[in-house]
Amino acid sequence: MEENVIMERLLELLKEKKYREFKKALIDMNEADIAEFIDELDAESACLAFRLLPKAMATDVFAELDSDAQEHIISEMSDSDLQYIIEDLSIDDAVDMLEELPPALVVRVLENATADTRKQINEILKYPENSAGSIMTVEYIGLKKTMTVKEAFDYIRKYGTDKETIYTCYVMGDYRVLEGVVTVKEMLMSSYDVLIEEIMDTKVIKADTLDHREDIVKIFNKYGFLSVPVVDHDNRLVGIVTIDDAMDVMEEEATEDFEKMAAMNPSEKPYLKTGVFEIAKNRIMWLLFLMISAMITGGILSKFEQAISAMPILVSFIPMLTDTGGNAGSQSSTMVIRGMAVGEIELKDALKVLWKEFRVAVIVGTILAIIDFIKIVVQYPGKYLVGMTVALSMFMTVMLANLAGGVLPVLAKKLKLDPAIMAAPLISTLVDAMSLLIFFTIAVNLLKL
Amino acid sequence: MEENVIMERLLELLKEKKYREFKKALIDMNEADIAEFIDELDAESACLAFRLLPKAMATDVFAELDSDAQEHIISEMSDSDLQYIIEDLSIDDAVDMLEELPPALVVRVLENATADTRKQINEILKYPENSAGSIMTVEYIGLKKTMTVKEAFDYIRKYGTDKETIYTCYVMGDYRVLEGVVTVKEMLMSSYDVLIEEIMDTKVIKADTLDHREDIVKIFNKYGFLSVPVVDHDNRLVGIVTIDDAMDVMEEEATEDFEKMAAMNPSEKPYLKTGVFEIAKNRIMWLLFLMISAMITGGILSKFEQAISAMPILVSFIPMLTDTGGNAGSQSSTMVIRGMAVGEIELKDALKVLWKEFRVAVIVGTILAIIDFIKIVVQYPGKYLVGMTVALSMFMTVMLANLAGGVLPVLAKKLKLDPAIMAAPLISTLVDAMSLLIFFTIAVNLLKL
Repeated sequence: MEENVIMERLLELLKEKKYREFKKALIDMNEADIAEFIDELDAESACLAFRLLPKAMATDVFAELDSDAQEHIISEMSDSDLQYIIEDLSIDDAVDMLEELPPALVVRVLENATADTRKQINEILKYPENSAGSIMTVEYIGLKKTMTVKEAFDYIRKYGTDKETIYTCYVMGDYRVLEGVVTVKEMLMSSYDVLIEEIMDTKVIKADTLDHREDIVKIFNKYGFLSVPVVDHDNRLVGIVTIDDAMDVMEEEATEDFEKMAAMNPSEKPYLKTGVFEIAKNRIMWLLFLMISAMITGGILSKFEQAISAMPILVSFIPMLTDTGGNAGSQSSTMVIRGMAVGEIELKDALKVLWKEFRVAVIVGTILAIIDFIKIVVQYPGKYLVGMTVALSMFMTVMLANLAGGVLPVLAKKLKLDPAIMAAPLISTLVDAMSLLIFFTIAVNLLKL
Repeated sequence: MEENVIMERLLELLKEKKYREFKKALIDMNEADIAEFIDELDAESACLAFRLLPKAMATDVFAELDSDAQEHIISEMSDSDLQYIIEDLSIDDAVDMLEELPPALVVRVLENATADTRKQINEILKYPENSAGSIMTVEYIGLKKTMTVKEAFDYIRKYGTDKETIYTCYVMGDYRVLEGVVTVKEMLMSSYDVLIEEIMDTKVIKADTLDHREDIVKIFNKYGFLSVPVVDHDNRLVGIVTIDDAMDVMEEEATEDFEKMAAMNPSEKPYLKTGVFEIAKNRIMWLLFLMISAMITGGILSKFEQAISAMPILVSFIPMLTDTGGNAGSQSSTMVIRGMAVGEIELKDALKVLWKEFRVAVIVGTILAIIDFIKIVVQYPGKYLVGMTVALSMFMTVMLANLAGGVLPVLAKKLKLDPAIMAAPLISTLVDAMSLLIFFTIAVNLLKL
């Protein structure tokens, strides 16, 4: 709340062109808050506000801006300012920015970078999307095992200013081969003349440049590190991933899973910043595919026209059966997909999952079936057979839904597909068709329609 | 893969009772991996493996174990071992453990703790579940602003060993009032005789003990800190939350949202460790509630028995309409719920969201409606009015679904409910009822049934 008040006051000062007061209030905030404020401004005001920032703050604010604001500000920036920003930005932030800029601006930015920076940026850009290499930074502290703690601290003091993290240092031998890892905490707890070799940990947990970024998140979750080293196939250190970037990845990956599980192509941009046509494009293919699948389900119903004409009341049970099937399938598939995403459920657990879902289905299906039966014989006295038909169909639908929800995500993983596609929408559609087939088959036979 | 091979080799050594080799291979792993291995063992083997660990590793491994394994090991542990573990554990890990242990064991653990540890544990336990206070730790480095960098380093060397993090230090005045924050990096970059006062940052971003733990995650995401200070209402520092704990919270909160959005009560335990009855209990209430709601939808259908008897083919369009409505509603509600969870969409954006969903619905609904119309007139030549009925109903269903999916989560938030309950299952059920009402009303009027 307090934050909103500050933001409104800033907007007012800007509108009244009280730039001195505006600047004073603006730079009193944290860099991330300043960026958040500038993100909300129109292009012109954003450039104005950014120019008011002292040089020492500008880069930190710039790194936090969203890509639209970065684009506006860069377009308006002089070459000399651009040179300053691109050198001052950390390499991974520079890469993030370049990935979103239009090509003409990318060229201009790279022309203004030094050869060394350009090389480092290209180094990262060459790695495939979503790989460890693509999210790492090359700005880390590399030590030699023959250094003493004192020498290491001197080295950090000299070269540490613009490193992403100094707290975990990596010890390398010839050809940058990773030999060990040592934290500043361990160094602080040792005396100055101890050799790094004596305190470094040689059991280094590391990632490969081509590992999926999701696997990096799992390493952070499991081991509680502040950074993870990334090596090439010859065990040479090429970069590190820091925990703040891993946290961003974790949030993005969860958002992607939410989107996929709701039958959408994942969007790169936040919702409010995504155009209507792009949103529609991300949604329509799945809607179409599922609608056509549902037409097939509808086709099943038209096979039972005779039964429906003879007993139209049967139709009133369709929403209950298909909805419950969809919900039960959604429950089990969600738990399994999430369990696999966080690394709890693996391929080898497939039978455990099936057995668990089977037992849950027995309990849940029985309760729902009994309630259906009672409801029907209360509402339509004497119609025991209709009650039986619905109850039996409900039980089988829940069983089917739980088993499909439990096994299909695992199967998808086995086939190297993303388990998240085997979520509620697809499973509902599958279970719908099956449950209606079951329902009308039982009805035709039991009620002699 | 390599990891699985090691685990299997360990199991073999254990089975063959080659304890010396087993111990050697076991302690060669990282503590988190050892814990993961012990988690999979039966109670007896788990205790055996744990006893083989050297004292220096035991606590770190213990902290990573799941609650079942912790319980088994504590039950078997001597009082003196227990005393060692409980003092060596960090307070937040001790609290996490106590929250899962049966009461008798809690009493035994607390009896074996020193008065000081017991006090610190009770301090954390008194905060409400999911509050900042409940996830913080009291083991942080507190400095005085009158210290020099050299004195600060001496202090850290002396007292830092068992602190959760030493990299961000908190500067306190009288009565532990939080005055500033300073990082080890800033200290390393300054000369030894500089006063902390001169380099500390006084614009401290902090949390209140009673803030929701989700808000703490948002602070980490936004500012990229390694730890966040937690203060009471008099701005006195009472603890800190470290980024590794925030990352755990982030994962747990995402899992909770996945579960709620699939109409389940969130589970405290991982899927494979949760009993069948508990899973069934978490699912049945929502299934029941939604099934009864779907019965009402079914009731709507029974009002149109006459139309259905006259034209049973209409029934075959029901799955397509309700499924697509459910899917479209799921798409829009998922994006909005997730947008609110990560802090992108706020209450004030309600109209923006509605306007966006309206336009998306126009595009998507039109495409689907046209395809439906073509499909029907191709399949049933001459039945233009049936095609019109279905196409029009499809368009209105998508519109309704997108608007409901866009606005209901925001409304829930406004009413201080969890937006995640306004997800696919509930919205599908609502949209189902409305879309069938629309469909049959149009059919009765257009087709004169």
